Amino acid sequence: MPQLNVRGISADQINAISKPMIGELALICECGSDNFTLDCIQTVSVFEGQRVDTYPFVEIAWFERGTAIRDRVAQAVTQHIHSIGVKEVEIAFKVYREDGYYINGRRCDSL
Amino acid sequence: MPQLNVRGISADQINAISKPMIGELALICECGSDNFTLDCIQTVSVFEGQRVDTYPFVEIAWFERGTAIRDRVAQAVTQHIHSIGVKEVEIAFKVYREDGYYINGRRCDSL
Amino acid sequence: MPQLNVRGISADQINAISKPMIGELALICECGSDNFTLDCIQTVSVFEGQRVDTYPFVEIAWFERGTAIRDRVAQAVTQHIHSIGVKEVEIAFKVYREDGYYINGRRCDSL
Repeated sequence: MPQLNVRGISADQINAISKPMIGELALICECGSDNFTLDCIQTVSVFEGQRVDTYPFVEIAWFERGTAIRDRVAQAVTQHIHSIGVKEVEIAFKVYREDGYYINGRRCDSL
Repeated sequence: MPQLNVRGISADQINAISKPMIGELALICECGSDNFTLDCIQTVSVFEGQRVDTYPFVEIAWFERGTAIRDRVAQAVTQHIHSIGVKEVEIAFKVYREDGYYINGRRCDSL
Repeated sequence: MPQLNVRGISADQINAISKPMIGELALICECGSDNFTLDCIQTVSVFEGQRVDTYPFVEIAWFERGTAIRDRVAQAVTQHIHSIGVKEVEIAFKVYREDGYYINGRRCDSL
């Protein structure tokens, strides 16, 4: 963690910004870049009887880090995604609790 | 938002009901139909050593709108899905917080 | 429910452990094995400008059952996944509320 779970932006597009974006997020979050994962979720979207492009959306799953860090993460991700020509993107944070997260069977609040 | 994230029902099946279903949800939620997204998440399911059909499931991600609206949304989605011959479906609501949701970098509680 | 939503482990690998793993989880949770679903979410992952294998991750969606049961579920899932040669895995629990979960249109807190 943090996990960036992406929809509506191709893996190739995300690939193009992955290194600078994760580098910046690692600075903001004060953790190693290898803590981050960047997964493109495969979807098929429909609207009013037609297949449509999936709306660009990133769900960021993490432990809560507070409003200031969250704002900076959201703005960095938004700017990088805008930079590849994606004009609109929404970002939601999903908060995991440390007592509900296990790394190789060990509960994170006991590490 | 709201986002309807669907598993276990094909995009073609959802396509067939997308227009009337989203129209009804827009009335219930008192918002434009273009606020909704309808994404089919691609999955492969297994059970007891065999590949099986994914159990029909819709996760609805939104800001909390209260029990009365939630009940009506769940019932509308259920009825439309039953109408295409899907006999069982479960629906879960995932609540995003406005201070953890960003549209083009702007936090929703500040809009 | 519980739902096991898996990334970064192939359906064939999960298939190989699905029967004993779900059997053990059913004992721990004191419910029928047919309450569980096991869905592999299709993803494409990138890191530092390259496509990479998705990091093994299981999100378990359920109603909260408390720390003791949660620990045992996490340890059982971890052990079964380690047994097929996957050396690292992280597990997160996503808690649904009974008043936000509907089975065929009926709210679970009213069943």
